[in-house]
Amino acid sequence: MTRILISEVGPRDGLQSIDRVMPLAAKQAWIAAEAAAGVREIEVGSLVPAALLPQMADTEALIALARTIPGLTVTVLVPNRRGAERAIRAGTHKLSMPFSMSETHSLKNVRKDHAAVLAEIAAVAALVADQPAETRPYFEVGLATAFGCTIEGPVSEDAVERLAVATLEAGAAEVGLSDTTGYADPAAVRRLVRRVRRAVGDDRLNTLHLHNTRGLGLANVVAGLEEGITTFDASLGGLGGCPWAPGASGNIVTEDLAFMLAAMGCDTGIDLPALLAVRSIVADALPGEPLYGFTPDAGLPLGFAA
Amino acid sequence: MTRILISEVGPRDGLQSIDRVMPLAAKQAWIAAEAAAGVREIEVGSLVPAALLPQMADTEALIALARTIPGLTVTVLVPNRRGAERAIRAGTHKLSMPFSMSETHSLKNVRKDHAAVLAEIAAVAALVADQPAETRPYFEVGLATAFGCTIEGPVSEDAVERLAVATLEAGAAEVGLSDTTGYADPAAVRRLVRRVRRAVGDDRLNTLHLHNTRGLGLANVVAGLEEGITTFDASLGGLGGCPWAPGASGNIVTEDLAFMLAAMGCDTGIDLPALLAVRSIVADALPGEPLYGFTPDAGLPLGFAA
Repeated sequence: MTRILISEVGPRDGLQSIDRVMPLAAKQAWIAAEAAAGVREIEVGSLVPAALLPQMADTEALIALARTIPGLTVTVLVPNRRGAERAIRAGTHKLSMPFSMSETHSLKNVRKDHAAVLAEIAAVAALVADQPAETRPYFEVGLATAFGCTIEGPVSEDAVERLAVATLEAGAAEVGLSDTTGYADPAAVRRLVRRVRRAVGDDRLNTLHLHNTRGLGLANVVAGLEEGITTFDASLGGLGGCPWAPGASGNIVTEDLAFMLAAMGCDTGIDLPALLAVRSIVADALPGEPLYGFTPDAGLPLGFAA
Repeated sequence: MTRILISEVGPRDGLQSIDRVMPLAAKQAWIAAEAAAGVREIEVGSLVPAALLPQMADTEALIALARTIPGLTVTVLVPNRRGAERAIRAGTHKLSMPFSMSETHSLKNVRKDHAAVLAEIAAVAALVADQPAETRPYFEVGLATAFGCTIEGPVSEDAVERLAVATLEAGAAEVGLSDTTGYADPAAVRRLVRRVRRAVGDDRLNTLHLHNTRGLGLANVVAGLEEGITTFDASLGGLGGCPWAPGASGNIVTEDLAFMLAAMGCDTGIDLPALLAVRSIVADALPGEPLYGFTPDAGLPLGFAA
């Protein structure tokens, strides 16, 4: 039975794209319930300046709370070394730093060109290396807009391969491929995963961050699975998107992904009815906010044993 | 470049699940526009008694109109020999007859057990064989509820294999696999396609009819493509379902499927902007009816060349 990790990114990627601020207690209840349903990794927030994203202002408090949940890997998005310092001080297990393959998107998003982002990755890597082994976080870089950019259009696979190599040379432990804009298709996923893995080694690329912008999210997961990818980001109720990439909304839906993987005989460790029940926590905390997903409406198939 | 046929089933599977009757002129405009966008096969209706499905009462008139569109294969659903007679008289190119793998569903749907449906298939096949070669329709049987049934639950793959063989022995030219209930997953699709093809020969199973009930529709297409399937049914705007299988609604969306296949480099012959424009015909004819699909909202990726 293939063991697959679903990494919940809703409290970060979902909530950052919604104007309203979810109260800390609701975030905590969401994370606790999802962990209790068997989700083993959750990206709880983003350590950017609170003035930029007030929705993420309580991230350090949330890390402290989430850390107490046994067996849960607490991940946080950090844009730079300053964010990484805060994340480490708060006790985060895993740092995720975005690196946009579209230089235009990178300049718009974090006002840094590729060279500047690579320098920042090296700075974060040095900081991580300085930590004592028992509290040293894992440091992953998400290669954003890896399948295309809403500003630049197509992104060259040559560039993604080269920048993936440079990211690891700069000291990241791992790279992931992010379809920030919902431009990926199953053939592109297979091609790019294969290509980057050939360049960096299979163990340095394990994660896909996919959006469902054009409805192809789970189809792209199938392609990733067949290439040996073992971690998929997803967002409960499909909350989320990228506020700086116009028209790029909608993470793949955790509930539909968990159902698909269970149906395919993969072991995600997730209790599906318990996962589906988490939805009401998010719905109650964000009344009127659209939640996506087909499995929650249709229910599990008759006689389905996960 | 792999050539893939998208078979539009919205005028049949979509409209039969909606209470309102779409006027003949609107159906005609829809079919003409979709054919002009490059769709090469359309299931225009169902030849069941008009008292049962008033939405399909104009099917014979529609066949006569659709037949005049150059290059279009006009398909019709027939439940029995009586329907097949009407379809042939009207000049249909292809007959599609459903055969439910769940005997309970079959009894509820057409009041026939498996033996009775096989006898009906033999009767239709004999009728087809009697036609002069130049007007003889192609006769395909869709193995409904092949991946599970909302009444019986799981459906045995042994039974599907056995009934597929029996269907071809009874004289059908081809079988298709239908996920009437949205129970399929990519692993099940691969397993069942492989198994049935091993039993009947690759050239006797080319079609998958998938629903998006749990959001896995396009993921299941990827699995089918990899097993060599070359025809996928889909419905514009995801209209449709099976009125006799509770909770089983939503064909895969033609627009999203066409985008995915184009992105993957398959040749469907479809002009995507022209296909997306067809949506307004359906929306105008069925005001308030929900239309599904992600690509229509998101638009095509920047710089996307189909």
